[in-house]
Amino acid sequence: MSDALRTDLYQMTMLQAYWKSRHNPEATFDYFVRKIPAGSYLITAGLSFILEYIENLRFEEEDIEYLRTQGFDSEFLDTLQDFRFTGDVLAMPEGSIAFPIEPIIRVTAPIMEAQLVETFLLNKMNFSTLIATKASRVVYAAKGRTIAEFGLRRAQGDGHLEATRACYVGGCASTSNMLAGKKLSIPISGTMAHSFVTSFDHEIDSYRAYADAFPKRCFLLIDTYNSIEGANKAVIVGKELEKRGEKLLGVRLDSGDLCELSKRVRKILDDAWLEHVKIVASGDLNEWKIDELMNKGAKIDMFGVGTELVTGRPTPALDGIYKLSDVVEHGKHIPKMKLSEEIVKTTLPGKKIVWRIIKNGKFEKDIITLNDEIVNEGLPLLETVVRNGKIVCDRPSLSQIRQNAAHNFSKLPDEYKKLEGAPTYPVEFSRELIELQVQIVEKIKREEINRSIIK
Amino acid sequence: MSDALRTDLYQMTMLQAYWKSRHNPEATFDYFVRKIPAGSYLITAGLSFILEYIENLRFEEEDIEYLRTQGFDSEFLDTLQDFRFTGDVLAMPEGSIAFPIEPIIRVTAPIMEAQLVETFLLNKMNFSTLIATKASRVVYAAKGRTIAEFGLRRAQGDGHLEATRACYVGGCASTSNMLAGKKLSIPISGTMAHSFVTSFDHEIDSYRAYADAFPKRCFLLIDTYNSIEGANKAVIVGKELEKRGEKLLGVRLDSGDLCELSKRVRKILDDAWLEHVKIVASGDLNEWKIDELMNKGAKIDMFGVGTELVTGRPTPALDGIYKLSDVVEHGKHIPKMKLSEEIVKTTLPGKKIVWRIIKNGKFEKDIITLNDEIVNEGLPLLETVVRNGKIVCDRPSLSQIRQNAAHNFSKLPDEYKKLEGAPTYPVEFSRELIELQVQIVEKIKREEINRSIIK
Repeated sequence: MSDALRTDLYQMTMLQAYWKSRHNPEATFDYFVRKIPAGSYLITAGLSFILEYIENLRFEEEDIEYLRTQGFDSEFLDTLQDFRFTGDVLAMPEGSIAFPIEPIIRVTAPIMEAQLVETFLLNKMNFSTLIATKASRVVYAAKGRTIAEFGLRRAQGDGHLEATRACYVGGCASTSNMLAGKKLSIPISGTMAHSFVTSFDHEIDSYRAYADAFPKRCFLLIDTYNSIEGANKAVIVGKELEKRGEKLLGVRLDSGDLCELSKRVRKILDDAWLEHVKIVASGDLNEWKIDELMNKGAKIDMFGVGTELVTGRPTPALDGIYKLSDVVEHGKHIPKMKLSEEIVKTTLPGKKIVWRIIKNGKFEKDIITLNDEIVNEGLPLLETVVRNGKIVCDRPSLSQIRQNAAHNFSKLPDEYKKLEGAPTYPVEFSRELIELQVQIVEKIKREEINRSIIK
Repeated sequence: MSDALRTDLYQMTMLQAYWKSRHNPEATFDYFVRKIPAGSYLITAGLSFILEYIENLRFEEEDIEYLRTQGFDSEFLDTLQDFRFTGDVLAMPEGSIAFPIEPIIRVTAPIMEAQLVETFLLNKMNFSTLIATKASRVVYAAKGRTIAEFGLRRAQGDGHLEATRACYVGGCASTSNMLAGKKLSIPISGTMAHSFVTSFDHEIDSYRAYADAFPKRCFLLIDTYNSIEGANKAVIVGKELEKRGEKLLGVRLDSGDLCELSKRVRKILDDAWLEHVKIVASGDLNEWKIDELMNKGAKIDMFGVGTELVTGRPTPALDGIYKLSDVVEHGKHIPKMKLSEEIVKTTLPGKKIVWRIIKNGKFEKDIITLNDEIVNEGLPLLETVVRNGKIVCDRPSLSQIRQNAAHNFSKLPDEYKKLEGAPTYPVEFSRELIELQVQIVEKIKREEINRSIIK
């Protein structure tokens, strides 16, 4: 299926207007994020989707027919049959650590092509990066305890698969989502539902039925009626499993005071010589609650996290944007920017790259420069991933992306990982870039705002 | 493609455990929402997806092969080849007004079937209902002004199409999402991006190019450099259009003090005899901001709303759940419920229905009763939509669903529509239901909690 119409109407009307006015200069757009929802850093994710999209971008006959019903110019529509993306893309590899204002992706192409890809790129990058970042925070809060993602039932509809993928990139160990297991080879995990317990005459009957069906991977949900009594019954079934030469793997708490209950349940298990039985906790968890549980010494071995992980709650969208920074006319680069009364909405002009200074194996600061500048001791963060419309980069597997993310995260100094009160990571602009911005602001003020506008 | 594996792992392990223990009684589950994110009511949406899913539910060969790699019993997997949904479903039609605790969907089937559908049902109903409700609030706040949904770029990935559909159900007039236009026949709308403006040498060149390409549907974005100067330039282009016998349709504000700017821009337009030119406003809007703008007398004719609409921000998930309420064993109904230390997590036992009392054309209160009770003056809200696995209800078109939602909303008394401080709509339980709950709680306490648990 074509994804060409997975875009906003205005991209198509602008395309027709560019075409009509024969205005199709080479243009450069930057994808960047203004503000990070929580914490100081982003884990980038979603690039794989962009590459696949760019590779396959074309208008199918049915797309063109739909556009015809919406009043587009038929000569313009004829040109869409041969529409392909022919430009260049630079990007931070998936699983990079990025900071506000830094170009994460830079697209250079005839403006009709560079413009069209905006919406798809934003949709995919904003969501995957939001969730990979959230997952990284949740995993960090758990201090080495396992995070299992359980979010499918609360995910935003068909967004569930990308959500689960991004959670895995960000460091979750597994998912409950079987489609993600099947399609993306993500490890799957799960326990049982309250309905399984209530469907039997007695709670212990349900435990025995489950242990009988899964003697080698038996996790029992113990809070359906009362968590302590559930734990006592789990001990009985754990002992029955032992007699068969099997072991109960774990119990799950899903309500109540998880810290207090985990300690009491741990004692019940330990007193019965069931030290190997793990305690899983779930129930509207997030990085802050997990942090608190860990700090209070909760006896929890694994956290099941759903809603917060897959939706990014409390901030369900990343405000990533895609802004024009340069146009080539008559062979000359013309830097471009948007002004705004809201200073945060003003953009950086010119073709830019990003450098990272690493000291003693740790990230120290980043520098945004113009394209032709070199920061000698810096590592360039943007790699060429598409040249002349062809993908020219490696296509790492999902597990490689996950490893890259973990490796990059290990180089971020601990202070930036703090859940609350993390300092702002230093991102500097080169002097040339600052001077260019001042110059373009002056030009815009002179030509667009202060001049007599009648022409 | 099969949606059978669009589910949690634990549904499949429970299925195998039900199968292994030959425990497959007729079971009834209720889908309901505990808590409404904001306001007093829900607009239900998503039922169409559930019906399609139930109709097509089967395990493909590749699903079964995947399950085999995950250690499922091969005899159990053989039974999945013929797995179909054979039960009954009652549901509130899509576009209904619902309140907390009320069953919105009731599924009765052999427990293996009723259990499996849980995750898909929750994923779809939770998201579509969340967004249709949010849209209804945003539309209400706009007091008759048009709401255009612009959310694709900030939607949660592939969830965008369901989000746009639900926004339309909730009352949005149009979407920027062309795929939703093509696939769902939702009206599309849009203006232009800042990059269109900055790509030209001068702002007014971009306006002329756009007016030339779309003389009959020209909306100009005026805040790229300065909204007032943008408005002045729009006037010039509006007058140029008039000379060609065309009309400028509108201008869009996307930053700054939208109330103040809209008044100043309205005056600029009116002073130039361009009273017909509409003012569109956008920029992180939501129901509260729109309400404030309307109350302050903003001169805005249309609101473009993106992120907040399609993600439900600040609450990106509805806490809808699916709980077992009844099991039939040896021909006898056995009411089921979950207890919890968190009282809000306790569920209602027994097969139930919902009645609505309507007085003078307005909703007065709802009553939840057991299945065999009758409320004489009440309208039953649950309709049979699936019988013996076959869909037996009408399948209204999307625009009919939208009309139904608007019609139902018109019968909700105004006090319940308030954005803040709306009273709780009265939802009563029949005496029989309350007595049943007390009785089951007693039974659970006696048999599961207080008794000596060694057996």
